[in-house]
Amino acid sequence: MTLGRGRVAVVGTGLIGASVGLAAKRAGVERVAGFDPHPGALSVAVELGAVDSPAGSIREAVEAAELVVVAAPVGAISACVAEALASTDHGATVTDVGSAKARICSAHAAESRFIGGHPLAGSERHGPQHASADLFVGSTWFLTPLAGTDKARRRQIRGFVSRLGAKPVEIDPIAHDQLVALTSHLPHALANLLVNQVGGASVAGHDALATAGASFREMTRVAGAKPGIWVDIILENAEAIGAALAEHRRLVEELEELLRRGDRDALSGWIEEAAGKRLAQGLDSE
Amino acid sequence: MTLGRGRVAVVGTGLIGASVGLAAKRAGVERVAGFDPHPGALSVAVELGAVDSPAGSIREAVEAAELVVVAAPVGAISACVAEALASTDHGATVTDVGSAKARICSAHAAESRFIGGHPLAGSERHGPQHASADLFVGSTWFLTPLAGTDKARRRQIRGFVSRLGAKPVEIDPIAHDQLVALTSHLPHALANLLVNQVGGASVAGHDALATAGASFREMTRVAGAKPGIWVDIILENAEAIGAALAEHRRLVEELEELLRRGDRDALSGWIEEAAGKRLAQGLDSE
Repeated sequence: MTLGRGRVAVVGTGLIGASVGLAAKRAGVERVAGFDPHPGALSVAVELGAVDSPAGSIREAVEAAELVVVAAPVGAISACVAEALASTDHGATVTDVGSAKARICSAHAAESRFIGGHPLAGSERHGPQHASADLFVGSTWFLTPLAGTDKARRRQIRGFVSRLGAKPVEIDPIAHDQLVALTSHLPHALANLLVNQVGGASVAGHDALATAGASFREMTRVAGAKPGIWVDIILENAEAIGAALAEHRRLVEELEELLRRGDRDALSGWIEEAAGKRLAQGLDSE
Repeated sequence: MTLGRGRVAVVGTGLIGASVGLAAKRAGVERVAGFDPHPGALSVAVELGAVDSPAGSIREAVEAAELVVVAAPVGAISACVAEALASTDHGATVTDVGSAKARICSAHAAESRFIGGHPLAGSERHGPQHASADLFVGSTWFLTPLAGTDKARRRQIRGFVSRLGAKPVEIDPIAHDQLVALTSHLPHALANLLVNQVGGASVAGHDALATAGASFREMTRVAGAKPGIWVDIILENAEAIGAALAEHRRLVEELEELLRRGDRDALSGWIEEAAGKRLAQGLDSE
């Protein structure tokens, strides 16, 4: 069940799929088959050496694969996984790279050959032309096996993502979604909110956004990115994101109260708490 | 009244004050006097060439100055401005570099020689050792003259900050505070809130902050910075920041409603609005 020098199939050859192909080839995988509904994306992946065998359909791409990695947009993953499972015999393991895991894992809970996955890697850039064999090096790759998941396949996937340079972290799908709601989807939402709030404002004839400084630009760099992909992610993880936003709103209200009271000590404590948390996580690397 | 090759005094020789000194010297100012209550900060500024004449008091620093730049922490500015005005004759113009302008300008509204200022330049680093003659090049420098401000002095200050490489922008003090509440203080507050919310969370044994990715780190880089300085700024501009936070909270609530409804079109429009606003301001320079 461990993946030898055999075959991997990548369904969706955008930034993530093509990077999986490049990293797999470098790790010694013999042959990478690939399919993408956009012929242009597939041919770029072939030119880069991320895909050896371009296929005309999911069925054709996965037929000889030991491992299938579905790297489609979140909204299309479930159908691709179903087709990959239906098109392979009991030897093939199927995984995905979607940013939300609860729904997809629940939809395929009866299938011991499917294990959800989510590499914490990416870029504002997209498309296979920005793919890199190094994209996953050193970063977390969440895996969400269920109680019924085949144990040997869990080891197989852990081994595969380790060979791509990532750190596999197994987690419950619902816990995963709550975690990324906080660490990824909430910040993303706040960046968009901030641009929309400040971008709409004009004070005494001065356009607010025009006078924004470097730290504003840095905080909002991800705002407006890939609307199609992000709407899918937000809707897929709407419940956990909604809970994170409601909690955020409660914290904003608390801060407003500190400001009304002019509570210097509490405000100092609030900033020092943030400093301590960043330091504890090594976020202060400068 | 235009500043010739004469004398400038800098009160407070931290990052901003020492950078004013370096930029002024490069622009041809003959002599920069300086005072700082911390002898270490003053001697570093002298070593760097930001200050020619170190002084033992504000009175001594400003006595021969045509222009006095008060670059003290926000909470100490008003007292320094008062002392600089009291220690100079009617030839000297006094300005400051504080991040909030309404209170300070109101406190010195009767004084035609004072003009509030705020350069939109800075760094997470502080102290004169990080000073640079280039710190202000190309960035906005707000000036907040009042109706009673001497017109020749307005020209003098505009000319001075232009010679430092900055773009002078005159604005009403209250409008200034509303503007920076949106573009600087609100994002700063959200960075701190985000670290405190996510840093406190543990989901199924996984520490949230430990799994945060690059975009989270980037969005929260300013969190926890300089608690003493930031508490002063927040309190000085509490009213405008409170209004910006309340509006932010309203926008968060709207987003929660879109999520509850699963309104794909409205969510797309919301992200595309952010993309359009960033593009219109040239924030997408990559």
